[in-house]
Amino acid sequence: MKTILILGAGLSASSMIRYLLQNADKYDWNLRIVDQDKSLVEKKINGHKRAVALDFNALVPNERRPEIGHADLVISMLPARFHLEVAKDCIELKTDLITPSYISPEMRALHNEALSKGIIIMNEIGVDPGIDHMSAMKIIDEIRDKGGEVTSFKSFCGGLIAPESDNNPWHYKFTWNPRNVVLAGQGGAASFIHNAEYKYIPYYRLFDRLDRIEIEDFGKFEGYPNRDSLSYRETYGLENIPTLYRGTLRRPNYCKGFHVFAELGMTDDSYKLYQSEKITPRAFLNAFLPYRKGISLEEKFKIFLREDRMYLYDQFEWLGIFEKDETFGIPNASPAQLLEKLLVRKMSLEDNDKDMLVMYHEFEYLFKGEKRKIVSSMINIGEDEVYTAMSNTVGLPVAICAKMILTGKIQEKGVTLPVNKLVYEPILEELKAFEITFEEHESIIED
Amino acid sequence: MKTILILGAGLSASSMIRYLLQNADKYDWNLRIVDQDKSLVEKKINGHKRAVALDFNALVPNERRPEIGHADLVISMLPARFHLEVAKDCIELKTDLITPSYISPEMRALHNEALSKGIIIMNEIGVDPGIDHMSAMKIIDEIRDKGGEVTSFKSFCGGLIAPESDNNPWHYKFTWNPRNVVLAGQGGAASFIHNAEYKYIPYYRLFDRLDRIEIEDFGKFEGYPNRDSLSYRETYGLENIPTLYRGTLRRPNYCKGFHVFAELGMTDDSYKLYQSEKITPRAFLNAFLPYRKGISLEEKFKIFLREDRMYLYDQFEWLGIFEKDETFGIPNASPAQLLEKLLVRKMSLEDNDKDMLVMYHEFEYLFKGEKRKIVSSMINIGEDEVYTAMSNTVGLPVAICAKMILTGKIQEKGVTLPVNKLVYEPILEELKAFEITFEEHESIIED
Repeated sequence: MKTILILGAGLSASSMIRYLLQNADKYDWNLRIVDQDKSLVEKKINGHKRAVALDFNALVPNERRPEIGHADLVISMLPARFHLEVAKDCIELKTDLITPSYISPEMRALHNEALSKGIIIMNEIGVDPGIDHMSAMKIIDEIRDKGGEVTSFKSFCGGLIAPESDNNPWHYKFTWNPRNVVLAGQGGAASFIHNAEYKYIPYYRLFDRLDRIEIEDFGKFEGYPNRDSLSYRETYGLENIPTLYRGTLRRPNYCKGFHVFAELGMTDDSYKLYQSEKITPRAFLNAFLPYRKGISLEEKFKIFLREDRMYLYDQFEWLGIFEKDETFGIPNASPAQLLEKLLVRKMSLEDNDKDMLVMYHEFEYLFKGEKRKIVSSMINIGEDEVYTAMSNTVGLPVAICAKMILTGKIQEKGVTLPVNKLVYEPILEELKAFEITFEEHESIIED
Repeated sequence: MKTILILGAGLSASSMIRYLLQNADKYDWNLRIVDQDKSLVEKKINGHKRAVALDFNALVPNERRPEIGHADLVISMLPARFHLEVAKDCIELKTDLITPSYISPEMRALHNEALSKGIIIMNEIGVDPGIDHMSAMKIIDEIRDKGGEVTSFKSFCGGLIAPESDNNPWHYKFTWNPRNVVLAGQGGAASFIHNAEYKYIPYYRLFDRLDRIEIEDFGKFEGYPNRDSLSYRETYGLENIPTLYRGTLRRPNYCKGFHVFAELGMTDDSYKLYQSEKITPRAFLNAFLPYRKGISLEEKFKIFLREDRMYLYDQFEWLGIFEKDETFGIPNASPAQLLEKLLVRKMSLEDNDKDMLVMYHEFEYLFKGEKRKIVSSMINIGEDEVYTAMSNTVGLPVAICAKMILTGKIQEKGVTLPVNKLVYEPILEELKAFEITFEEHESIIED
């Protein structure tokens, strides 16, 4: 019998818990799950005899340590900033650990300690990061194995709304933490490399510097640059690649509209607005536009938008940005907090809405003197409001990885991420059964 | 006999030390001066028998405390972040203190302690902050005393190059810490109030949101908003004023040009550029412009500038931004560091150059049913490269304040700034002898 300890049972844990419970009898697993909201856990395990909802605070070392000590594997779905402390406990107590989050420098520094204790700390094994690494490495390894040389890699991912539920002019609904969506891209410039030239895009030009892609049957998307593309050269073993670019996908007009918010200054989270509790959407907009006597706010906003972006006007009107009857009612709020409330009011998932996860890779490589291109794309639609595409694509790789560790299929130790063929190949294979499948197209580039 | 301890003898201390030495015999003062560069102090005191250059590290508490304990007054010209620790020592050792810097919240919190020890900690008594407070309060008090009501106050200040030394297309040279000039306005939005509407300008629109002013015999200036205008309502006792705005003055085209740097992302100090030591001015510019095959960097930059700003092109060419022969040679540099080097190379003071300090206030007020306007402006030209306008306007108010404290003319105690008539009136009066004089014009506003 093996014991799996799960810390945190939020949105993206649903699909993972379902998978583990479905396999619990077969592999003789017991799940011990804790969340600050115990009823959430009880709902997700729904009386299954292989699982128990625990009653402690996972953020308190002395409360979680006895549980970690008795577990064979810990899965931390806590907010990313808590993984490091959990990892230190796992090392001390010699328990394997999985997290779906980015490896922080502090986490990376634990590698040798984890190795010496003979445990694995697997990170970045959700969707982005996670499936992006695995699906990219599969193609990169294939190109390398046959003697090709990757010269360009562009990769995009986005958590969006399914076409059947897409009924607003922004073509977006929050399928993930709204605060993170509002603050996306802030803090330093986006950096990438293009034909051996380093490029830096400051935040306030980010949503204006777009790549356009199209996916058969799903139409058009636009991608804005992620903050850091350059560190992926090392992750993927592509140290000398001339072009490497990663971006986030949205539907057309979302980015151009969001760029207006950034330009106005509404996404700023670094200061508080005076008397913010009294601010209406209308006053919020007016605070970022110049004072002008005798013209309406609508006119002032049109002047700010400029003629060439006037097609965005309706999107803003639909958001209720000119409304003056209700205040946000948040004291001591930053602009970003008011913007979040404005957006969440109109862009939240409705009953029966389904979400959509889109991933898109574009490789160029040289092979026997020929320039070739591989496009690989994956679209996953959520099942319902619990087993969303986000929950499936984040939770299933974690769950499959847990199975592989517990059954000895993964022998790797130390602080790692899923770029090893022995790890990504079986996971990608099994994900196909859940309709998480990549379509690949290869073509020859004519100069 | 009284002992004045001066911590820090940098640029703006020259005029202050000269004034104190010229008055030392008359008032029986001895000056004890310390700077990390002792030869700098020796040069400034030039053998005067009333002054001694000390040999300790002012940043080390145990080294400075005995000196503070023996002094009657401390003047801290250290970088602003060190004033707090010095103030704590002064409270403990019951020694009065003057600093030209802004009162930090931590400094303000020392008010009651300073009061209970019976000492004064006078801050914000340079030029900006300093002369701006004093010259503004003089007019505000005058309007109030006669029963008027201030409805609008706009205030601008700038450290510039004198017309006779203005020989570059940016009409600017560094007369102050270049790093501060490059980073000016960063961190949070500029906030002010205009006709009772709060306004917030994000950093990347700051240098594009300009006020134009003109001063007789000196021509045109442009002002960009300072970060925080709103806190001055309390400072000046203008809590309910509908319009309050503070800005920084530059000559026309400087701000529009600097806006291009901000827009490109070149003023960012929050991250490091890859392989920065190898970057040339040309590569630096290219890093912030898109990759395009077959067109020159000059053409790409023109596209970025847009037709309506093409008049700025020559300014950038003059800076050498297209040069490709020399690298900056700074390892691990932020964009802001490279930009600073680019600017300093071409915009530093040359031999015999003189600087210029400009201050400009514009008040509107209601008086007996009439709307009136007062414009008050001051222009000071530096004497030479040591007794600059910056050194005179920062150092002389400090020195005069020191005299007033030591002679008992200032009886105020606690953590304060010069907004009290008993303080600002004699200082403004004495500054006239140094050609630091305000021209006032009053007019009636016709609706």
